[in-house]
Amino acid sequence: MSKEFFAGIEPVRYEGPDSTNPLGFRFYDKDRMVAGRRMEDHLRFAIAYWHSFTWPGTDPFGGETLLRPWMQGDDAMAMARQKADVAFRMFELLDAPFFAFHDRDVAPEGRNLSESIDNLNAIADIFEAKMETAKVRLLWGTANMFGHRRFMSGAATNPDPEVFTYACGQVKAAMDVTHRLNGQNYVCWGGREGYETLLNTNVKQELDQLGRFLSMLVDYKHKIGFKGPILIEPKPKEPTKHQYDFDVATVYGFLERYDLLKDVKLNIEQNHAILAGHSFDHEVRLAYAMSVFGSIDINRGDDLLGWDTDQFGMNVQEITLLMHEILKHGGFETGGLNFDAKIRRQSIDPQDLLIAHVASMDACARGLLAAEKMLDEKALEGPIVDRYAGWNTSEAKAILAGERSLEQVAGAALSLDPQPRSGRQEYLEGVLNRYT
Amino acid sequence: MSKEFFAGIEPVRYEGPDSTNPLGFRFYDKDRMVAGRRMEDHLRFAIAYWHSFTWPGTDPFGGETLLRPWMQGDDAMAMARQKADVAFRMFELLDAPFFAFHDRDVAPEGRNLSESIDNLNAIADIFEAKMETAKVRLLWGTANMFGHRRFMSGAATNPDPEVFTYACGQVKAAMDVTHRLNGQNYVCWGGREGYETLLNTNVKQELDQLGRFLSMLVDYKHKIGFKGPILIEPKPKEPTKHQYDFDVATVYGFLERYDLLKDVKLNIEQNHAILAGHSFDHEVRLAYAMSVFGSIDINRGDDLLGWDTDQFGMNVQEITLLMHEILKHGGFETGGLNFDAKIRRQSIDPQDLLIAHVASMDACARGLLAAEKMLDEKALEGPIVDRYAGWNTSEAKAILAGERSLEQVAGAALSLDPQPRSGRQEYLEGVLNRYT
Amino acid sequence: MSKEFFAGIEPVRYEGPDSTNPLGFRFYDKDRMVAGRRMEDHLRFAIAYWHSFTWPGTDPFGGETLLRPWMQGDDAMAMARQKADVAFRMFELLDAPFFAFHDRDVAPEGRNLSESIDNLNAIADIFEAKMETAKVRLLWGTANMFGHRRFMSGAATNPDPEVFTYACGQVKAAMDVTHRLNGQNYVCWGGREGYETLLNTNVKQELDQLGRFLSMLVDYKHKIGFKGPILIEPKPKEPTKHQYDFDVATVYGFLERYDLLKDVKLNIEQNHAILAGHSFDHEVRLAYAMSVFGSIDINRGDDLLGWDTDQFGMNVQEITLLMHEILKHGGFETGGLNFDAKIRRQSIDPQDLLIAHVASMDACARGLLAAEKMLDEKALEGPIVDRYAGWNTSEAKAILAGERSLEQVAGAALSLDPQPRSGRQEYLEGVLNRYT
Amino acid sequence: MSKEFFAGIEPVRYEGPDSTNPLGFRFYDKDRMVAGRRMEDHLRFAIAYWHSFTWPGTDPFGGETLLRPWMQGDDAMAMARQKADVAFRMFELLDAPFFAFHDRDVAPEGRNLSESIDNLNAIADIFEAKMETAKVRLLWGTANMFGHRRFMSGAATNPDPEVFTYACGQVKAAMDVTHRLNGQNYVCWGGREGYETLLNTNVKQELDQLGRFLSMLVDYKHKIGFKGPILIEPKPKEPTKHQYDFDVATVYGFLERYDLLKDVKLNIEQNHAILAGHSFDHEVRLAYAMSVFGSIDINRGDDLLGWDTDQFGMNVQEITLLMHEILKHGGFETGGLNFDAKIRRQSIDPQDLLIAHVASMDACARGLLAAEKMLDEKALEGPIVDRYAGWNTSEAKAILAGERSLEQVAGAALSLDPQPRSGRQEYLEGVLNRYT
Ligand SMILES: [Co+2]
Ligand SMILES: [Co+2]
Ligand SMILES: [Co+2]
Ligand SMILES: [Co+2]
Ligand SMILES: [Co+2]
Ligand SMILES: [Co+2]
Ligand SMILES: [Co+2]
Ligand SMILES: [Co+2]
Repeated sequence: MSKEFFAGIEPVRYEGPDSTNPLGFRFYDKDRMVAGRRMEDHLRFAIAYWHSFTWPGTDPFGGETLLRPWMQGDDAMAMARQKADVAFRMFELLDAPFFAFHDRDVAPEGRNLSESIDNLNAIADIFEAKMETAKVRLLWGTANMFGHRRFMSGAATNPDPEVFTYACGQVKAAMDVTHRLNGQNYVCWGGREGYETLLNTNVKQELDQLGRFLSMLVDYKHKIGFKGPILIEPKPKEPTKHQYDFDVATVYGFLERYDLLKDVKLNIEQNHAILAGHSFDHEVRLAYAMSVFGSIDINRGDDLLGWDTDQFGMNVQEITLLMHEILKHGGFETGGLNFDAKIRRQSIDPQDLLIAHVASMDACARGLLAAEKMLDEKALEGPIVDRYAGWNTSEAKAILAGERSLEQVAGAALSLDPQPRSGRQEYLEGVLNRYT
Repeated sequence: MSKEFFAGIEPVRYEGPDSTNPLGFRFYDKDRMVAGRRMEDHLRFAIAYWHSFTWPGTDPFGGETLLRPWMQGDDAMAMARQKADVAFRMFELLDAPFFAFHDRDVAPEGRNLSESIDNLNAIADIFEAKMETAKVRLLWGTANMFGHRRFMSGAATNPDPEVFTYACGQVKAAMDVTHRLNGQNYVCWGGREGYETLLNTNVKQELDQLGRFLSMLVDYKHKIGFKGPILIEPKPKEPTKHQYDFDVATVYGFLERYDLLKDVKLNIEQNHAILAGHSFDHEVRLAYAMSVFGSIDINRGDDLLGWDTDQFGMNVQEITLLMHEILKHGGFETGGLNFDAKIRRQSIDPQDLLIAHVASMDACARGLLAAEKMLDEKALEGPIVDRYAGWNTSEAKAILAGERSLEQVAGAALSLDPQPRSGRQEYLEGVLNRYT
Repeated sequence: MSKEFFAGIEPVRYEGPDSTNPLGFRFYDKDRMVAGRRMEDHLRFAIAYWHSFTWPGTDPFGGETLLRPWMQGDDAMAMARQKADVAFRMFELLDAPFFAFHDRDVAPEGRNLSESIDNLNAIADIFEAKMETAKVRLLWGTANMFGHRRFMSGAATNPDPEVFTYACGQVKAAMDVTHRLNGQNYVCWGGREGYETLLNTNVKQELDQLGRFLSMLVDYKHKIGFKGPILIEPKPKEPTKHQYDFDVATVYGFLERYDLLKDVKLNIEQNHAILAGHSFDHEVRLAYAMSVFGSIDINRGDDLLGWDTDQFGMNVQEITLLMHEILKHGGFETGGLNFDAKIRRQSIDPQDLLIAHVASMDACARGLLAAEKMLDEKALEGPIVDRYAGWNTSEAKAILAGERSLEQVAGAALSLDPQPRSGRQEYLEGVLNRYT
Repeated sequence: MSKEFFAGIEPVRYEGPDSTNPLGFRFYDKDRMVAGRRMEDHLRFAIAYWHSFTWPGTDPFGGETLLRPWMQGDDAMAMARQKADVAFRMFELLDAPFFAFHDRDVAPEGRNLSESIDNLNAIADIFEAKMETAKVRLLWGTANMFGHRRFMSGAATNPDPEVFTYACGQVKAAMDVTHRLNGQNYVCWGGREGYETLLNTNVKQELDQLGRFLSMLVDYKHKIGFKGPILIEPKPKEPTKHQYDFDVATVYGFLERYDLLKDVKLNIEQNHAILAGHSFDHEVRLAYAMSVFGSIDINRGDDLLGWDTDQFGMNVQEITLLMHEILKHGGFETGGLNFDAKIRRQSIDPQDLLIAHVASMDACARGLLAAEKMLDEKALEGPIVDRYAGWNTSEAKAILAGERSLEQVAGAALSLDPQPRSGRQEYLEGVLNRYT
């Protein structure tokens, strides 16, 4: 079956910049050395199980378009196994180093929690077996605690402690499986951890519940010896009107408040960034500035739409700035570039799924190469260092170190008439254009 | 002069709900008791010097429309004194309990910092004298460190430490004046504390500078014995592309990070809330939930426009929810309702300025009265208490108190099949409509 | 079955403003005379079959929450009949004067177009029989040509003429049924009549196809003697990235271009208005100004969300302005207030469905009463007439009538120095607040 | 003076792709042949007088930053002459083929309309003299009827016919000057032709006034023999809450309604497009589809900000799609690429002004070259032609030509089961990335 789905399609290879083959890489050349690492070790791509293998092509106004063979049968576990075969075939075709999944992506909900966990473990057995010979590794696992109606008013933040309890049961199983499959991170995206209306919501209570839930998960992770970080994925809204994990700054404050900074980091998505009113680069910078950077969901939103379109990231310049930031900090540690991206529901041919990944992997590779060059030539870093050079005097350092009082500094101000200096924005935009 | 500007206009009085006089109050009845306080003591209105007396009616595409007499002369200090006369006459006409100002609103920039400070102090002398007999008090003072070109790249967050130094000089003087005039709070709005482009910006450095600046100001406040809190006013953008004090959650994280939570609280504005993608109610709730609520800039933005229109707040239902939140927490402490609102630039008649305040004061009074009734009848609080009642069991409390591990709770989950309960949003919206 | 679903619920009656019964009307008093008509004849409410009886409570991130009995069986036609019973029971409980439906709401898609049409006709037979004794009438019918995957790239605007052809077959059947049931209008909402990306789209071709499709429908309507107008419902985006029927102004231009102004009018929805960047009032005014006003989808969007939430309209002030506009033009002709509004997916109790309608009907009734009073007292119309009074001179009329050349008028300009007059916005906002 | 302002700066020359000189062109090679024309004849760049020479660097929260020498004096006409010298020096340095201006950019408002016109004519004399030897030509002229307070409530759409009359006087003079200087177009941007609140606005009246005004201008243009088109520049909002010329589709409908399609075309700006919720490409395509394309204001907005930032266009991919569209239609006729773009207010050095233009001209040149290649290789056009190929059958053509009735086509539908075909969006995005 899995072979049939991608029938006639050969593994995707590096073919060089002149290739016009949509199933060949033009820039992604995995063994090429970039800033001291193989390109594959920098980009650490992960295929997302949900968008690529679980989403049927629906939207709020229309039904299934993709008609995947593994969604047409009645035996849910048989379908799940067929899906796994196709998924691993795709990992192979794309030579993908990682994948990622929600518990409910890979195995169906059972009649009760125990059966759901059994289903999950049964598919995990299959994964484990496949991973013995396949190259692909698990970037992260996560639990879908937003799809089922029991979670309609939240999982950890539900007004009903029974749902909170249920969520604990589900997240434990998902963490166990992630640990068993050597997942490098564990992700929490709080799809329903927010509110639909403040009229029925106790915000403080819900935040406390969420803090407690995360703390319990952190304790458990340590107990079982799971080494990777827990990653929170900020998103401002959708499906709920307002999500508590609004953006990087909000989650940072939350982690401070509930004393979770040591164990929890962030998984940042481009589409969520712009829905929150921020550039992707902003969110990543802020995460690094606050030492909470973890991983990336590489996709893109539509600047003119107000919902999460999760399109494949193709914007080379934006990705260049992303990779510039990541390279500047030494590259990924446990994180990677997870394709939280779905083909458009009109892209119904099997090869569309591959073409989308190839085109985006190439865009990322171009971004990486451009970022390397910019860093080598200090194209952006040089002007920034110059711009802040005044802060290198011993007096300026003393101020910043807290060794001067307001009165002392205010006194010095009386003899000053500081002159502004050009911000040189257009110059820098031109420089960036030289590299992309 | 001041009498002439409002020539023929009588002090505004409470006239009752049937009045059709735009210069009479229909609901704002200052001595009426509401939830144990006089209405005036709840609403604590402040007239904002900048919008009402300093803004000439310009916008980015057009010049002065208002042609205020005190903006037409060449002698800046004489104009400032004339302006003060008009302002105090308006406080009297509106029977306003408070006012608020930036240093540069009340007195002109001098040839150097010393002269600017002298100008400020000279006007403060006049204020002090007037306040001996006038009823009006100072809700807060602040420093305008965004208008002059020296601040074009930030004040505290400027790449040039000379500008930081200058800002220290200016803020100290503004704090001194606020203290002298018995201001109840001191406000910081960081108009240029952000960036125009990340291409030339060191985010971490700038955040550290801002943290240092605030810390110095907090120390100074304690030193001089200023009792009120320092208030940060979040705003996500405008004039800069991105402001560091984006919203309540962001500022909370910042205060945590730089250890400022004890001394700094928030001044929340409706228009800034919606520009950040939040409802006004959300921002206020979050501030209370995190114990950083301070004061309100009462105005409204246009839901369909992407800039800060600072219109007078007229939306009774939104204000009802605001006052409901504030009353629920016992009412204002040092804060109040500051009219950070400007008449439209087409509202060129002197009475437009008064009519706008009167209409908005009435809208606030209606909101207060509705909120009182809703609280008395537990119209919203009752259903919320019921909705979270499950968390009152001892087991649920133990979970929330951190006395249960994930495994313990996960074990309990296996026998559960939690059933969702209606969120009753439309019912609650109908209830709210009953009160407004 | 239908009785069981609303078991124990009595028909909703007018109970007066003091009622606190969420299933009693506080303002909607159908026989009360307003501006010369019964309230029911003004408000002309229609219950929407899709949101109320066909939507299972899904959203893009979650499954069914409502678990309606008529969605749980395997026999699609039996389920459709059960649904019809519940629907007519609800019409009765709410005493609703109208309803509205898509073909696929009321009857299931068959194995081919003929069977789909047979299914539709079979349910229409049931409707016809029920309508003989029920009060409810059909406000409009429409065809769902966006849900099935064959329409994923458009119906009339599909690149494939076979899909266009199929759409003709479907729309003819829907028009026939609407005509048979004495529908007062026929509506077209082009859910997929737009594009997902310009990269694969021939805009001009698609517009021509859409123009042709509408023209054919207009001809057919005349041929069968359908008296009501065809109504286009503008929406700027969602599900597609861009819909051709973006807003009122866009559709007006389209109707001009394809010579459809005589037969086609507009069905205006609040949520679509704000998604297009307009106020509801703006869209309605523009439609009247251009003589294309037809009917209303009464609902509301969330000002902070970028998708179509279709919430129940509860905003009395906004509805007041709507009704003011409609009353000013003599009230509805064939149109009405269609509840294109869905309960939140958390509102899972049967009575939530009723409560939502009752609360919104009351909000509309309040708006109608306020509008009547404002019109009687010329509260808004008076100041507008005054403001434009200058255009009543014979010279101004001559200019507007095209009887003066630019040179003539320019000559007169040389001696002028026009003085601006206050726009009095805050005064008018205060006036509006007096009525709501 | 003018030499001093750009002291030491040499004319900008083409230096090739490897140049790192911000004052050298890397791609803009004016004599290079592209699709049968010299590059300069394709790109037809115009320098905008207002942003480059008239804007002092203010924003709504801050004052002048740029401190241009020609804005510091008291003699307004002397300053205007100095400004003209600097402007023409810049045209020369950049080798710009065109410029554009508002009447009030080039000459100061006088004490009355006659004096204002005299001032304008006096500067036009200087322009005329300079243009005898300079290369630069006038792309278009326009009248600023939004800055002065007399226009605060609109020019043509003012409630006061005196203001309408005044606007006629002003626009006639601006048209006369544009004609005298051989302007290739005349532009109308209705900065105040909209409303601030519907509460005080008669929409239909104002639209009729605007239609009349344009008609008078069209008649006058013919009378004086002005050959170029009148161009309306759509903008959805700002400075007013809502502008009547919202977007391309709205203006199209307006031109149809007031019978202006023959003489009026559109000047499309990127920033205005996105403020209206459209992509730049969308607006341009729609204008071509409706035969109203005229010219371009080349700039860019910030996708995350809600106001008109008018930044220099640097987005090569977006410009590629723009040039692809324009080349596809044979290139500009009377239009061009007008730099309605301003340097950031922090870019205070004289060379920033030049660097910004150079970088954007290069971005446009790259876009043009990429577009040429894509058209040559039918990279996008080929797949589109294939996608719509079904419409080439004689039956499909007959349907589109109006030769088939709904019943005829509906009959054919009964035997059809149309199968969807992939939209191939990701493939096409990958193709686009190959060219940019
Ligand atoms: Co994601
Ligand atoms: Co997403
Ligand atoms: Co404020
Ligand atoms: Co504001
Ligand atoms: Co609708
Ligand atoms: Co809708
Ligand atoms: Co612009
Ligand atoms: Co422009």
